[in-house]
Amino acid sequence: MPRPRAGPGVALVRVLVSGICNTDLELRRGYHRFSGIPGHEFVGRVEGPEGSPWIGKRVVGEINLACGRCTECRRGLGRHCARRRVLGILRHPGAHAEYLTLPEENLHGVPDTVPDEQAVFTEPLAAACEILDQVEVDRGTRAAVLGAGKLGILCAAVLENAGAAVTMVGRRSRARARSFDLVVEATGSPLGMPRALTLARPRGTIVWKSTYHSPARFDAAPLVVNEITVVGSRCGRFEPALDLLARRKVDAARLIDAEFPLARAVAALAAAARPGARKVLLRSRP
Amino acid sequence: MPRPRAGPGVALVRVLVSGICNTDLELRRGYHRFSGIPGHEFVGRVEGPEGSPWIGKRVVGEINLACGRCTECRRGLGRHCARRRVLGILRHPGAHAEYLTLPEENLHGVPDTVPDEQAVFTEPLAAACEILDQVEVDRGTRAAVLGAGKLGILCAAVLENAGAAVTMVGRRSRARARSFDLVVEATGSPLGMPRALTLARPRGTIVWKSTYHSPARFDAAPLVVNEITVVGSRCGRFEPALDLLARRKVDAARLIDAEFPLARAVAALAAAARPGARKVLLRSRP
Repeated sequence: MPRPRAGPGVALVRVLVSGICNTDLELRRGYHRFSGIPGHEFVGRVEGPEGSPWIGKRVVGEINLACGRCTECRRGLGRHCARRRVLGILRHPGAHAEYLTLPEENLHGVPDTVPDEQAVFTEPLAAACEILDQVEVDRGTRAAVLGAGKLGILCAAVLENAGAAVTMVGRRSRARARSFDLVVEATGSPLGMPRALTLARPRGTIVWKSTYHSPARFDAAPLVVNEITVVGSRCGRFEPALDLLARRKVDAARLIDAEFPLARAVAALAAAARPGARKVLLRSRP
Repeated sequence: MPRPRAGPGVALVRVLVSGICNTDLELRRGYHRFSGIPGHEFVGRVEGPEGSPWIGKRVVGEINLACGRCTECRRGLGRHCARRRVLGILRHPGAHAEYLTLPEENLHGVPDTVPDEQAVFTEPLAAACEILDQVEVDRGTRAAVLGAGKLGILCAAVLENAGAAVTMVGRRSRARARSFDLVVEATGSPLGMPRALTLARPRGTIVWKSTYHSPARFDAAPLVVNEITVVGSRCGRFEPALDLLARRKVDAARLIDAEFPLARAVAALAAAARPGARKVLLRSRP
C-alpha cells in the first residue's frame, strides 16, 4: 500500500501494534459494506506532518472523525456526528497497516509506563468506560455482566474499579433473577437481551453493548412492567481508559491470545475468528 | 355477585363510574390467566368499614396492593412488589362491579371540582405522568408520541403541560429522522419500536409504554450505535394526575366514546374492542 499523507492538522502515524476486534471480522462479512484497510485499535508513533508538536510521540487515537459543524458536534458529541468517518470502519483507512492518518485532535499521548501491549487496548477499554459516563455506578451497585468475551471482561474490570460488586453470568449460571441493579449485555448474541431482562431488578438498568446482524427478538413485557432502563452503549472517551492503564488498575494484556507480524494478517484474522478466541495482535516490523 | 367485605384498613368502595382499559380486553383473551371481575379505572364513594375517616368520601385508588415488607416495598416501590395483587388484573376483584375493596392507603380523595367523567381517568393519566418521574422534560424538549390511542393522547397532554414541543406521529407521518430528544412509544404494536428508533436523536430517550403478546423484533444496532436510552414505563403516582385534573390542565373526558350502564357491561366491552375506539365507561345505577 502507498504510505498515506499527513497534512495540516492531520497526523501520519506509524503503527506499532494493532488489535483485531470482532468488528474487523464483521466487516469482512460485509458489515458497513466496508472495503479497504480495517483496524481501529492501535498504538503508534507520530512521524508527520513536519513541524507538528506530536512528532516522535507514542499515541493512541479516537476513531471517529467528526465534521465539527453539525448539531451533535456542537454538543461535543462528535462520536455521534452523522457525517463522521470512522478509522477502519467507515470511509477512512484503518490500523492494520504500517501507517495510518488521523486528525491531531484525535490523538492522545501514551504515558511511558504503559507498554504497547496495554496501550493497544485503550479503544476497547474506553468503550467499557463509556458505561460510567452513562450510568451511576458506586460501591453499592450489584452488577451482572453477560458475555465472557473481551468486551465483557473489560466491562467487568471497569465496573469493579468503580466499586460495583460484579457477577460474570455465563450461559449456565444460576444468578438470581431480578436481583441486579445493573446488567451489562455483552454477549454479542440475540439470546443476551431476554436473559438480561430476567436478571435486572425492577427499575434496574441494562447496558446494551451487543451488536449482531440478526434482529433482536424478545418478550418486551418485563421491560415495560418492571420499568427497566436500557442504555445503548458504544465508544467512549479515551482519557478514563488511559488513566486506568497508567494506574495499572486494569491488566488488559491478559486478554492477549496471540501476536502475529503484520505480514501474516490473514492468518491473524483466522486466529481471531476461532470460537472463544480473545485478543489477537498485529505487530509491524520495528 | 356478593358484596365484598371491608375490614380494618380495607375500604369498601361503591363504584360510581369505571373505565374500560385495553388491558381488560387483553385479560379476556387470556392475559395473566385472569378469572374474576376485571376493571382498574374507577371513581367511587367509600361506604365502609364503619368508623373509617374515609366514609362518604369520593375517591380514586392506586391499583397495586403491595406486601409492604419486601425490598421493593421498603424502597417505596410497592408498584414493583413481586408479591403484589393488582385490582382487576391479578388476584384482586376489580372495578367493573357495584362494589370493590382496596386498602385505605391506596385511596386518594377527589376534589369536588373534578367530575366523575374526569376522575375516572386518574389511573391512565397517572401512567402518562409516570414519564415525568422517569425522564427530564422541560421547555426545550422536542418530543414525539407514537400511537394516537388513549394512552398516546394522555402522554402528549402531559408532555405539553411540562413544556415539551410535542409531535404526534402517525403511521404515515413524515417526522424527521433522528430529530427528537424524547420519543414515547405507545402504539401497542411491535412496529412501534423500530419506528421510534428512527426518530430519536443520538443519545435520545425512548419511553416504552406498549405491551403486546407477540415478541418485540427490531434491528438493535441503531439503539447501540446511537446510544439510545429506552425506559420501560408503566403505572404512575396518582398525585400529579389528580393535580392536572383539578387544575383543568388536561381534559381527559374528551376521550370518552360512550357510556353504558353496568348491566350492559358485555356490550360495553364489545364497543371498547372496536378498532379505533377510545374510552368506554360503565356507570352503576345511582
